[in-house]
Amino acid sequence: MEKILQDLRCGNITVEAAQKAITAELGLEVNLEEVGVKIDNQRDQRTGMPEVVYGEFKNLAQLMQITATLHQKPGFLITRIKPEMAGEILAKYPQLAWNKQAGLVHGQAIDKKYSKPIGILSAGSSDQSIAEEAAVTSELMGMEVLRFYDVGVAGVHRLFKRLDDIKKAGCLVVVAGMDGALPSLIGGLVKMPIVAVPTSVGYGASFEGLAPLLTMLNSCSSGVTVVNIDNGYGAAMAGVRILQKE
Amino acid sequence: MEKILQDLRCGNITVEAAQKAITAELGLEVNLEEVGVKIDNQRDQRTGMPEVVYGEFKNLAQLMQITATLHQKPGFLITRIKPEMAGEILAKYPQLAWNKQAGLVHGQAIDKKYSKPIGILSAGSSDQSIAEEAAVTSELMGMEVLRFYDVGVAGVHRLFKRLDDIKKAGCLVVVAGMDGALPSLIGGLVKMPIVAVPTSVGYGASFEGLAPLLTMLNSCSSGVTVVNIDNGYGAAMAGVRILQKE
Amino acid sequence: MEKILQDLRCGNITVEAAQKAITAELGLEVNLEEVGVKIDNQRDQRTGMPEVVYGEFKNLAQLMQITATLHQKPGFLITRIKPEMAGEILAKYPQLAWNKQAGLVHGQAIDKKYSKPIGILSAGSSDQSIAEEAAVTSELMGMEVLRFYDVGVAGVHRLFKRLDDIKKAGCLVVVAGMDGALPSLIGGLVKMPIVAVPTSVGYGASFEGLAPLLTMLNSCSSGVTVVNIDNGYGAAMAGVRILQKE
Amino acid sequence: MEKILQDLRCGNITVEAAQKAITAELGLEVNLEEVGVKIDNQRDQRTGMPEVVYGEFKNLAQLMQITATLHQKPGFLITRIKPEMAGEILAKYPQLAWNKQAGLVHGQAIDKKYSKPIGILSAGSSDQSIAEEAAVTSELMGMEVLRFYDVGVAGVHRLFKRLDDIKKAGCLVVVAGMDGALPSLIGGLVKMPIVAVPTSVGYGASFEGLAPLLTMLNSCSSGVTVVNIDNGYGAAMAGVRILQKE
Amino acid sequence: MEKILQDLRCGNITVEAAQKAITAELGLEVNLEEVGVKIDNQRDQRTGMPEVVYGEFKNLAQLMQITATLHQKPGFLITRIKPEMAGEILAKYPQLAWNKQAGLVHGQAIDKKYSKPIGILSAGSSDQSIAEEAAVTSELMGMEVLRFYDVGVAGVHRLFKRLDDIKKAGCLVVVAGMDGALPSLIGGLVKMPIVAVPTSVGYGASFEGLAPLLTMLNSCSSGVTVVNIDNGYGAAMAGVRILQKE
Amino acid sequence: MEKILQDLRCGNITVEAAQKAITAELGLEVNLEEVGVKIDNQRDQRTGMPEVVYGEFKNLAQLMQITATLHQKPGFLITRIKPEMAGEILAKYPQLAWNKQAGLVHGQAIDKKYSKPIGILSAGSSDQSIAEEAAVTSELMGMEVLRFYDVGVAGVHRLFKRLDDIKKAGCLVVVAGMDGALPSLIGGLVKMPIVAVPTSVGYGASFEGLAPLLTMLNSCSSGVTVVNIDNGYGAAMAGVRILQKE
Amino acid sequence: MEKILQDLRCGNITVEAAQKAITAELGLEVNLEEVGVKIDNQRDQRTGMPEVVYGEFKNLAQLMQITATLHQKPGFLITRIKPEMAGEILAKYPQLAWNKQAGLVHGQAIDKKYSKPIGILSAGSSDQSIAEEAAVTSELMGMEVLRFYDVGVAGVHRLFKRLDDIKKAGCLVVVAGMDGALPSLIGGLVKMPIVAVPTSVGYGASFEGLAPLLTMLNSCSSGVTVVNIDNGYGAAMAGVRILQKE
Amino acid sequence: MEKILQDLRCGNITVEAAQKAITAELGLEVNLEEVGVKIDNQRDQRTGMPEVVYGEFKNLAQLMQITATLHQKPGFLITRIKPEMAGEILAKYPQLAWNKQAGLVHGQAIDKKYSKPIGILSAGSSDQSIAEEAAVTSELMGMEVLRFYDVGVAGVHRLFKRLDDIKKAGCLVVVAGMDGALPSLIGGLVKMPIVAVPTSVGYGASFEGLAPLLTMLNSCSSGVTVVNIDNGYGAAMAGVRILQKE
Repeated sequence: MEKILQDLRCGNITVEAAQKAITAELGLEVNLEEVGVKIDNQRDQRTGMPEVVYGEFKNLAQLMQITATLHQKPGFLITRIKPEMAGEILAKYPQLAWNKQAGLVHGQAIDKKYSKPIGILSAGSSDQSIAEEAAVTSELMGMEVLRFYDVGVAGVHRLFKRLDDIKKAGCLVVVAGMDGALPSLIGGLVKMPIVAVPTSVGYGASFEGLAPLLTMLNSCSSGVTVVNIDNGYGAAMAGVRILQKE
Repeated sequence: MEKILQDLRCGNITVEAAQKAITAELGLEVNLEEVGVKIDNQRDQRTGMPEVVYGEFKNLAQLMQITATLHQKPGFLITRIKPEMAGEILAKYPQLAWNKQAGLVHGQAIDKKYSKPIGILSAGSSDQSIAEEAAVTSELMGMEVLRFYDVGVAGVHRLFKRLDDIKKAGCLVVVAGMDGALPSLIGGLVKMPIVAVPTSVGYGASFEGLAPLLTMLNSCSSGVTVVNIDNGYGAAMAGVRILQKE
Repeated sequence: MEKILQDLRCGNITVEAAQKAITAELGLEVNLEEVGVKIDNQRDQRTGMPEVVYGEFKNLAQLMQITATLHQKPGFLITRIKPEMAGEILAKYPQLAWNKQAGLVHGQAIDKKYSKPIGILSAGSSDQSIAEEAAVTSELMGMEVLRFYDVGVAGVHRLFKRLDDIKKAGCLVVVAGMDGALPSLIGGLVKMPIVAVPTSVGYGASFEGLAPLLTMLNSCSSGVTVVNIDNGYGAAMAGVRILQKE
Repeated sequence: MEKILQDLRCGNITVEAAQKAITAELGLEVNLEEVGVKIDNQRDQRTGMPEVVYGEFKNLAQLMQITATLHQKPGFLITRIKPEMAGEILAKYPQLAWNKQAGLVHGQAIDKKYSKPIGILSAGSSDQSIAEEAAVTSELMGMEVLRFYDVGVAGVHRLFKRLDDIKKAGCLVVVAGMDGALPSLIGGLVKMPIVAVPTSVGYGASFEGLAPLLTMLNSCSSGVTVVNIDNGYGAAMAGVRILQKE
Repeated sequence: MEKILQDLRCGNITVEAAQKAITAELGLEVNLEEVGVKIDNQRDQRTGMPEVVYGEFKNLAQLMQITATLHQKPGFLITRIKPEMAGEILAKYPQLAWNKQAGLVHGQAIDKKYSKPIGILSAGSSDQSIAEEAAVTSELMGMEVLRFYDVGVAGVHRLFKRLDDIKKAGCLVVVAGMDGALPSLIGGLVKMPIVAVPTSVGYGASFEGLAPLLTMLNSCSSGVTVVNIDNGYGAAMAGVRILQKE
Repeated sequence: MEKILQDLRCGNITVEAAQKAITAELGLEVNLEEVGVKIDNQRDQRTGMPEVVYGEFKNLAQLMQITATLHQKPGFLITRIKPEMAGEILAKYPQLAWNKQAGLVHGQAIDKKYSKPIGILSAGSSDQSIAEEAAVTSELMGMEVLRFYDVGVAGVHRLFKRLDDIKKAGCLVVVAGMDGALPSLIGGLVKMPIVAVPTSVGYGASFEGLAPLLTMLNSCSSGVTVVNIDNGYGAAMAGVRILQKE
Repeated sequence: MEKILQDLRCGNITVEAAQKAITAELGLEVNLEEVGVKIDNQRDQRTGMPEVVYGEFKNLAQLMQITATLHQKPGFLITRIKPEMAGEILAKYPQLAWNKQAGLVHGQAIDKKYSKPIGILSAGSSDQSIAEEAAVTSELMGMEVLRFYDVGVAGVHRLFKRLDDIKKAGCLVVVAGMDGALPSLIGGLVKMPIVAVPTSVGYGASFEGLAPLLTMLNSCSSGVTVVNIDNGYGAAMAGVRILQKE
Repeated sequence: MEKILQDLRCGNITVEAAQKAITAELGLEVNLEEVGVKIDNQRDQRTGMPEVVYGEFKNLAQLMQITATLHQKPGFLITRIKPEMAGEILAKYPQLAWNKQAGLVHGQAIDKKYSKPIGILSAGSSDQSIAEEAAVTSELMGMEVLRFYDVGVAGVHRLFKRLDDIKKAGCLVVVAGMDGALPSLIGGLVKMPIVAVPTSVGYGASFEGLAPLLTMLNSCSSGVTVVNIDNGYGAAMAGVRILQKE
């Protein structure tokens, strides 16, 4: 940093250039025009993903304030929103969309380039709400989505029938509850990255999704990665990281 | 019971018949000639399975004493025996056999009729010691054993290749560690009873076999049943219950 | 496969026969006339069990659509259905039956041959809804059901009284919550297969059924197998696998 | 306390009496002549049980020092002592006894009156070391011990045969691993207090004794109480509390 | 048994005497006049405790039927009954009592002799409903109850103040949630049996009572025994076993 | 104690002085004027913190009675109170304040001196209710509170921007759910005591706050301490212990 | 399939072409020339990754046999091999390499194209063996590896210093034990895919790596994915899936 | 930052001052003279604590290298070092000290001012090694240490006897295994900060220290904070944070 400051002092570089160089050297892209404390406007630039609002534990006042500030940004998204709060928000911002099954309120998709479409597979029709959370989030991020639902292990020929289409995706999000066995099977059949999403669908010794989570972490197919239980949103974002063109 | 006793009193039935009738009515087949307290000689008659010795927590003195009493009985079996103890026992009773991989010391197979052979499947070659515990126990119980090893989900075509032979068994024992996904896949392809055996093969979030145990309990294929982690012996015994001809 | 194709080429066999032979050789009974993607019409042929609908996480629209397609098939069954949804379905399809205690909506029983009746035992009267789930499912699958309720370990003579009748079954489903001790006791008294069903009846250190699940997995009676907590349906299906005549 | 001090001031009572009265009123029987900090000589008076040394995590130096101070006291006991340390102690104090199976080093039994003998039951012969820990501790506390080993649930008639003798005890310690079902069965047959001891005997889903612990806590027989896994010592001490004559 | 039957045959004994002798020898006090299958009328004689109805998982029809059969028996008790069901039962059987805080419906106390009163201690006022479950059950069983509420470890002098009165009890039930530390403290101060009851009072890492359960199982005071989380009823029944005069 | 009593006897000291001296020597500051059994008026003197009422498991009658007795004391606080009960209390005691977000009803702040302000940090806006529980409790205890909300690890520059202000606090309470990573980061940047509060904000493998609890207990920054999940109140009280001037 | 068979029949296509077409249509690339049952030679083609041998539970005989068959194949790898077995193998196959720290025996790297290098980060120097497992595996798969070790959260400026170099990787493997906080921090700073690897480094409430596993699954940075505890190999394979050029 | 750069440009401030001001504004005290990447020399300045080496998972080569670099720094400390490695290090660096019981190798104490001594309490003599880890670390950090060992809850008068001395400490580290009840008791008696350390001393349902960990997190005494199981080092460091004079 000393050299930069010397250069500045000697008039070799401008204040602006010095500022930029120091920031770069420190490895810290400080957000200089941040308006208010809470909104992280530059996360998009740093991580390639817009800031998303996790709705589950927020009250209506908080959600309304955030929506007022952000609703016009492409990629605006509130996840895990309760129906009654979604209704209130939609009433005021009718231009937003509400996907009830996936529990999402969102705005316009962002404009971003990806190398290939993302494939979303679900094992059973009960897993569909989480699969849709992944699919709608992916679409909002500007991806093309290929859906393959109800292709679970107990009826394995249904999966084989669709394998050629599945192979057209550049990354697979594989959603499964109960025994969570689908990613292991898929993992032995395809080359692309696989993001496994355990769901809390099931009962008893499923322990709210612990069973498929452990199954997936112990997958005997190499290179399968896992996100949190019911985290369709996070799987879509992993897809963004994998497929986005810089 | 009163009526039986009345009959006896009136000379309608013999003492022996009365004894038998009372025992039957009470639903308790009492062991009348039991020699000593510890050995349950009649379990065989009640349950169709000889008493088996669980060797893991017994010391050499205990094992030697039990072997002295029981080693000539068909179906004599000590499970989970440590190599050093097995060596001592074999030195004294060379007519017994020791299966080191399966951790079993055993005698002659029993003579018993079964409706069909038992099939033992294992997912990976690391699961083989548990699969062998099931296979050797089954053979000792007098069953014909069909072995299908290394047919895990990650290389699913290996399983399909052998499916016709698998279908010749009357009951399947399916041994798998890590993700424990194999029973779910098999369960969707065959009609016969399936006894799933989770193994402690794996590491990290396998949690000593908890992961495949939960997977199997949550199998999305109907009618799959499960035994304890690493319990190849118990799975074989479930096979005896299922396949034995009365 | 090459030989089959050669035969076809030489006109030794018909196209239809070739198709059938190839499918068989690959161990994959592909569903050729599958109408729509979701319904697995051939599972019945592969596994001997009709496809069953798991109702707990499905919404009314999904259930209505499935019912419309499948309600006339023998063995039609929706499990874990909520009362309000069951009411809606019954209103439209009055020929279906609703078993409120067991949480099942179902159609006509299938016509299938079994070697023996199935016995359903429950430990306490609080376990009865799960026992009924097993019993009604068994009846729907065409089995004769023998019920033995309230025969728990704390009043053991009640069990002994009924032991002779219990022995008439070809397979036992043993339902128990709390300490889950009943299968261990039964397992030492009878020869036939035992499918243990832990229930979530209990409180505190029952941990929603974890206690009886572990008890049953660790049963000191050989050959006891276990299904998921509260999975009366699955136990019945295990019974189908065990008792069905091919 | 004020009144006592007034009485003292007025010469109505002696200093000694005042001291005693104050201590009593405060509910705190303070140990006035305690020699050194560590040894709690008065625990015996407060709780009716001598202080016992938990040997598992202590090194030889600590154990030697404690033994030097306490070995002549009746009821002297070191639990869970490793063989090599026991050997060292016995070499120096040959008047002490070492029970290798139970892992105990101890001195003379205390002289104490009890209302009845204590009964120690074990389910399997692998549970015997814990049962012996309970039995030897009980004898050291001056109790008469009735042993009933190998009376587990899988061979229930062995238990029934001995029930009359079991009923002679005033309190039962019931030791069981694996499914831990024995206390539930016993609890439905007898009137006296039952202290259940889960053991870590077992494997897989026994989870080091968690399975029988949960079983016992959920016992469907009323009034069964439980101590820690493998805690034979603690069960014996519960017996002291229950059976001692004041 | 043979000898008894011979004696009967020879007219040495009556049928009635033979029946009684056989029953005794088998260690099985069979209930000969049992009316209907479900009610275990003789449990009282075997275990010294009347049969109690666990209300939590029973529906109103089941509870009404049981109440109709049993409500006039001394010691009649339904535990964990929901308010709406209690209301229905009270409306029909106004002679029964409902303790809302403890969640109990009960009849007249039984007439039974005990050696001493039972002491019920609770750590915090939030634990009171479980303490009352223990206290009311104890009273129904005919015991004198000494209540010591709100004597937790955080204000230890409150406990010391009452220690003399506490020592008048012959057995202590110690109820505590959160850290569950009270039984350890008490255990170091008194001689009598201690039954510790962990409660689900608390949040977060209490994990519904797991924390105090583990605390109590690991009590550093010797001879403390434990019952299930929130099991005030069971603790009272342990008190019956300990204090009853035969 | 003997010497004090001798002094008293000889008239060297007064009864009052003797009483005080004895109490001090025994290390037990007995509460002499305690009015009724339940309220621990002297806890304040012993621990520097007023007694606080844990509202979650108390019914309205209990809360009303406690409020009647204590509401005029500075520092009066009921935590985790349900809105409907808070409303009832406020209706009768309008001088009290209700913080709905933090779930607290409280009175006037106490007058107490502290060395420095307390800093409250929260990772996400969903953690705010717990952060406010800590902040409002701190203010009620008379502390100056510095709030730093929404400074989580995913947008780390927001934290760095505020680091100078954070350093003005004498103790930090760091509230975080989900990954619970914030205390580790903070711990590497500042010198003062850090009390980490895991929250139950999250889903799936958060397991109601278990995930951040474990994260914080394993913090790689030295000297971070942890309180129970969602225990904002406890963290504030730890702050009182750390910052109060004697 | 019918059309293909018709074409064959009519002589439009050869037997070989028909065979290929059928296999493709069924979505099952059957391995026709498989030599022996166990080795899955075609996995490479299906998944882009060679078959790798999991060494932990295999005995020397098994490992020797596998090595004999496979050691000349590029990408040959045995993971988690014990030192004594590695020594035996190296003695016979000196052309293989043994990485003791990473516990790997391997052959020549495969020749494969990737879009970018892979970056391996570790939080502490104790995590290095797992980081090396990932790094060496990556190199064996033909990737360029960028290592960034010891950049944990407690000394965050060390990470910022290297951020520019980190951004040159196309995918990051982030290895951390204890609090597992590093992936959350990284996730907020970069755009590329992040595969988090929890390690079992730590003690106490780390619970063998459970703590960082849960932390990572609950990462507040979007799109972070997770593999099993200590699974450096799996993380490298996820990198292969992400970075390989088809 | 712009203003600082402007000032520099205008010659208002020196390069050195600008550098310092920028660093301060960014809240990041960058380590400018860092020698090599691994050693975090400035942590001391940022956090008030020297960097400490966690020895458990490091091999001898790593430890030797670190010792060579750092051993002359005051406060040099390696924790959890195995005896054989400690021996090697001591052989080369005889000026270092090895505390075998606490598992520490360390150098000279640092020179630092604290407001008061730290008090270390342990419940049982088996907890002493962890208590010593805390005590020796505290001394190395320059604190005066007051030790109070063997003052557990089961012999509570031993604690009361020493309470006056305990109150002389400015912060208490309370070490306890098994039931972990000591911090709750202490917390109700004193005003100062309490850092509770659960230990893995115990067996069975202690689950390697989980029991006392949960006890302490649920302490009914307000303001008790907790560190990881067996983390005596971390507790000492929390003491440094609390007691150090800036």
